[in-house]
Amino acid sequence: MRRILFVSLLLASTAAAAEEGMWTFDNFPIAAANRALGTRIDQAWLDRVRMASARTSNCSAGIVSAEGLILTNEHCVATCVANLSTPERDYAVLGFTPASRAEERRCPGMIIEVLTGIDDVTARMQAAGRGLSGQAFTQARDAEAGRIESETCGRDETRRCQVVTLYRGGQFKLYTYRRYTDVRLAFAPEHRAAAFGGDLDNFSFPRFGLDAALIRIYENDAPVSTPNHFRWTEAPPTPEQPVFVAGSPGATQRLLTQAQLMTVRDMTLPLEQLIWSELRGRLIRFREESAENRFIAADALSGIENSYKRGIGRMRALIDARFMAGREAAEADFRRRVAGNAELTREIGDPWADLAALQAETRRLYPAFYMLETRAAGGSQLFTWANQIVRAAQERARPSAERLAEYGEARLPAVQRQVLAERPTYPALDTLQLSWWLEKTREILTVDDPRIRRLLGDESPEALARRVMSGTRLGDPAVRRALWEGGLAAVEASDDPLIRFVLAIQPVTRGARRDYEDRVQAATDRASEALARARFAAYGTSLYPDATGTLRLTYGRIRGWTSEGRTVEPRTTFAGLWARATGAEPFDLAPRLAAARPRIPADTVLNVSASTDTIGGSSGSPAVNAAGEIVGANFDSTVLTQRNAYGYDPEVNRSVLVTTAAVTAALRHAYGMEHLLAELGVGGRRGGRRTR
Amino acid sequence: MRRILFVSLLLASTAAAAEEGMWTFDNFPIAAANRALGTRIDQAWLDRVRMASARTSNCSAGIVSAEGLILTNEHCVATCVANLSTPERDYAVLGFTPASRAEERRCPGMIIEVLTGIDDVTARMQAAGRGLSGQAFTQARDAEAGRIESETCGRDETRRCQVVTLYRGGQFKLYTYRRYTDVRLAFAPEHRAAAFGGDLDNFSFPRFGLDAALIRIYENDAPVSTPNHFRWTEAPPTPEQPVFVAGSPGATQRLLTQAQLMTVRDMTLPLEQLIWSELRGRLIRFREESAENRFIAADALSGIENSYKRGIGRMRALIDARFMAGREAAEADFRRRVAGNAELTREIGDPWADLAALQAETRRLYPAFYMLETRAAGGSQLFTWANQIVRAAQERARPSAERLAEYGEARLPAVQRQVLAERPTYPALDTLQLSWWLEKTREILTVDDPRIRRLLGDESPEALARRVMSGTRLGDPAVRRALWEGGLAAVEASDDPLIRFVLAIQPVTRGARRDYEDRVQAATDRASEALARARFAAYGTSLYPDATGTLRLTYGRIRGWTSEGRTVEPRTTFAGLWARATGAEPFDLAPRLAAARPRIPADTVLNVSASTDTIGGSSGSPAVNAAGEIVGANFDSTVLTQRNAYGYDPEVNRSVLVTTAAVTAALRHAYGMEHLLAELGVGGRRGGRRTR
Repeated sequence: MRRILFVSLLLASTAAAAEEGMWTFDNFPIAAANRALGTRIDQAWLDRVRMASARTSNCSAGIVSAEGLILTNEHCVATCVANLSTPERDYAVLGFTPASRAEERRCPGMIIEVLTGIDDVTARMQAAGRGLSGQAFTQARDAEAGRIESETCGRDETRRCQVVTLYRGGQFKLYTYRRYTDVRLAFAPEHRAAAFGGDLDNFSFPRFGLDAALIRIYENDAPVSTPNHFRWTEAPPTPEQPVFVAGSPGATQRLLTQAQLMTVRDMTLPLEQLIWSELRGRLIRFREESAENRFIAADALSGIENSYKRGIGRMRALIDARFMAGREAAEADFRRRVAGNAELTREIGDPWADLAALQAETRRLYPAFYMLETRAAGGSQLFTWANQIVRAAQERARPSAERLAEYGEARLPAVQRQVLAERPTYPALDTLQLSWWLEKTREILTVDDPRIRRLLGDESPEALARRVMSGTRLGDPAVRRALWEGGLAAVEASDDPLIRFVLAIQPVTRGARRDYEDRVQAATDRASEALARARFAAYGTSLYPDATGTLRLTYGRIRGWTSEGRTVEPRTTFAGLWARATGAEPFDLAPRLAAARPRIPADTVLNVSASTDTIGGSSGSPAVNAAGEIVGANFDSTVLTQRNAYGYDPEVNRSVLVTTAAVTAALRHAYGMEHLLAELGVGGRRGGRRTR
Repeated sequence: MRRILFVSLLLASTAAAAEEGMWTFDNFPIAAANRALGTRIDQAWLDRVRMASARTSNCSAGIVSAEGLILTNEHCVATCVANLSTPERDYAVLGFTPASRAEERRCPGMIIEVLTGIDDVTARMQAAGRGLSGQAFTQARDAEAGRIESETCGRDETRRCQVVTLYRGGQFKLYTYRRYTDVRLAFAPEHRAAAFGGDLDNFSFPRFGLDAALIRIYENDAPVSTPNHFRWTEAPPTPEQPVFVAGSPGATQRLLTQAQLMTVRDMTLPLEQLIWSELRGRLIRFREESAENRFIAADALSGIENSYKRGIGRMRALIDARFMAGREAAEADFRRRVAGNAELTREIGDPWADLAALQAETRRLYPAFYMLETRAAGGSQLFTWANQIVRAAQERARPSAERLAEYGEARLPAVQRQVLAERPTYPALDTLQLSWWLEKTREILTVDDPRIRRLLGDESPEALARRVMSGTRLGDPAVRRALWEGGLAAVEASDDPLIRFVLAIQPVTRGARRDYEDRVQAATDRASEALARARFAAYGTSLYPDATGTLRLTYGRIRGWTSEGRTVEPRTTFAGLWARATGAEPFDLAPRLAAARPRIPADTVLNVSASTDTIGGSSGSPAVNAAGEIVGANFDSTVLTQRNAYGYDPEVNRSVLVTTAAVTAALRHAYGMEHLLAELGVGGRRGGRRTR
């Protein structure tokens, strides 16, 4: 079997390509990894890596000192940098380089979570849904998850409990985290240094990004003591060196059937790409209107460009005949094995046929669900707050088990923290996002859909967006707090135009969600669960699940690749960065980094590529060597790697890392961060060569 | 065979759905049409319809009086209206309603062509390419076409000769036209009346658009005498009434193989839709910046929105399992018939396999061809002029047969007329378009493609676009004329920054075209020709060819349809328009039309749907009844109809027409165009009921 299929797709670990797999820490194939890499890691090594790994709300991170210092990517703290900045003092332009620990500044709403325990709750979760279907099934499951989480974590602000669905329902695990809510920015380079090459170099390699930042967790206004941390090294990784990446990859769809994937190819991806492409255009023009708009749009635009390029890579994967043939063959093999097991077949029926039959309804209901619920208001911060305030008020009036899942008792504190976080808002941006969203929703649902009348009344999208965004006072944290604490009575009595709008459209947005969950999601979940059981029966239990935003470990080597006759080396240096700079955006050097050019050894390794299995959410993941030293942080991959949403392709799948060697050089030579270098244990070593 | 296949796709006419087919006038199935419709048209009827039909550079039209008056769509004269307008006096807002013929105004660059002859030149054209391949094949063919055109039309400005490729190379015909270059606007309603419902109602039915305009052809400053014209009627068409639509549909791809269509689905359409979607976003934001920008962007934006929505319909068709199964079955039937003909197979080989093998190269080369050549500068008028001036100067230095086809001796006058047409330009718009184009080209070709360095040098797209567009003087017709007449020496000596830019990038843009024509187009043409021969052999000669922008006749009935359980009636009235108006854009009534509401009989039929076979380019096509009277003008179809690029679907294929009944009512009651009503022969008849 070994490597017969080009895309191995979650078969038994012995059949998978050496580097494939985003493994859970409680099921990591230690022996296979050691065999493949020639290493000798053990359970104690794994435990140390796990305890030094962390996550933010959307990125990964690694603890690198005993005093709560944490390495992640600059792009993972970009929102924090923006929140701490003003158009006059923009740390994205200047870099954030406090002279001492006392000047580290709190990131509004940012959290750090460290995994402390994994417990199996599969039996309870499956029992909760037994015999139910449609919305009743979804609600019973959500309620049980809420109960499990509350039982363990209660409302303890310092812990987080999360019931995680693995193998698309094959397993449910309770993940318990230690949570830190006072997260301060300790260092961020100039954004231009982190994102050199901008959107053009994003998702590519060779790469020249110093996409690293340091944050620190505090409690009671003092740094948290973190004896479990990675040892920092400024020795660069070498080609073919084994490397492990520990992080929280967001989502893969490797367990989807071919029928489900065709829906992604034909409907989901084109829908998403097309509408975001238009918002991108609006934001590009908005950005060009003034220096202030350039500042305001930066964060939203880079997020959209990142998603868009990822989508391009995925579209390309789904029309790649070689890649899709691999998936097809894997599904055929799976079905053959199941067909040969009469007892299993009797038990689970034909989940492939069930899922295939569901696709017509999926295609019918997904657009409204996506537009009205998943992506309502196109990321508008003010709208998001209004929606959270309104829904929390409505949901709190019900017993926890009957609420929308994210407003259950155990999950409510996370929502509250987001709503009350102090961050600046820019109504011009929210107006643009809301107006775009109303227009695209009307276009996709068509103007004669009664829900559109409910959304718009007789107003045009632009007029409505201008009215509610210019009139709202939700930018004021005190106003949000009063509404949050005032509950449903306060919300319903509010004359804030955005609150009134969001209240009025609840039947529409909740309705789209209910329709989708009831007629698509529940049946999909049940069929997927049957598939998961079949998969365990066919291939044994040594499988890794789809990524779910929870801590995973992937292993591989520092490695380049060959594509269309071109061989790419796995390392870049500062010399390459200087050579690539043209002076024109986005290939202009960051001033402080450029000024350090005479001092930074040109052969310092800046970025490396590795054959590890990572995806969005892995950003910031610590990359460690077999000795457990941190050698870099994952910050990207390539366009060709985007197919790894659907399957691991050993020929082209590459993670892109920024090295600790480069971070050390930058801290030392460009940003003068002596106190951090000392804390990382690399402060004095090269002191004799320092020029400032 | 009859109607066994849901999509009948150009099989013998007896097998085709009654309404299917964009037939050439020299091969119209008179008997079949009479049989299907119960009519009694004959060759004389056909000749009269042909002689009263006309085309503009991108639309169709019908002659409606003996003094050169022509009916087309408002959207077909939108560019003319924009050119005649200023931000202060915007005829798109006001309507263009001259009080007398003397106030009719010339449309810059606009032409009218009336077909006068069709001659078969297949033998000459096929002989010219025999034994050649690659670029030599393409060039020999182009040269022969140029010779044929020159031999017949010379440089006679009043005639146009065009060698037309039919059946994708199965036939070549010389089409000869009488050409009129003094075209004046006689009437255009308020744009809001024509485009009521805007982009939202575009490509839909029920529909409420007064999308009609009248133009007049002049020679020597006097109206052209046009004894061959359609009789105007204000009697509305009735359900199931037979109707014929004569026009110049632009392009269909019904003869593509399934392998070719997969390339359209997977690559061509997504590429195009995604980039235009972003430009749309930029233009929407641009439009919102000021009243002047709203005026400037209107024409470009509505064109993009139209193409985008058409693309959505096509994407939907290509993932419609029922529709694609029909095409698949048709191809299988065709291949079976050919396989049964051993002699034919020996002669033509396997063109399906040839075309399938070409798709990898097509997918590789098309993006650069599309970005660098087909859609260079995203429609920028100033760039287009610069490119025409530069290329004409370069090409005129060569013998006609060796030039890029569109600069051959016979075709040069058309280019010259475009370059010298006096029309306003708006550098802000051109800057936006050029900047967008440079950015998207860089994104798609990737920043490391050496052609990108050639395009941009060390400048950013924005800076380059601003520099060349703010510095160019090509907006001045005298400057263009001087460069045109000065030829290569003047062009090479010019310091105009746009001319210099366009000169510098010729190797890149011409190179992308050469690559595509050489490695893709020529081989595609040869295989398509083999398929055409096979098709004639398999199904006889009574076929219609793919649309090619040349005059066609389609027949059908006034008819609604049923889709997803909803039945749509085929007629709308002014009463429906009043009811649909909300007051908010784009559902706000045009003021002058709204003011006429008390006078226009509410049951006047406004729009109708018909089962005729039309596509983009058919806009403005006269719809005539069996008596040869003009009852309307085609102006649109529906989103579901967009699949007719790939096949006729009788269940949903519908043309949307504006009735002459509605045009009469508007001329009479809203716009006070007495002199035109008299000319149309409907001036006096209802005079007693008129209130003004």
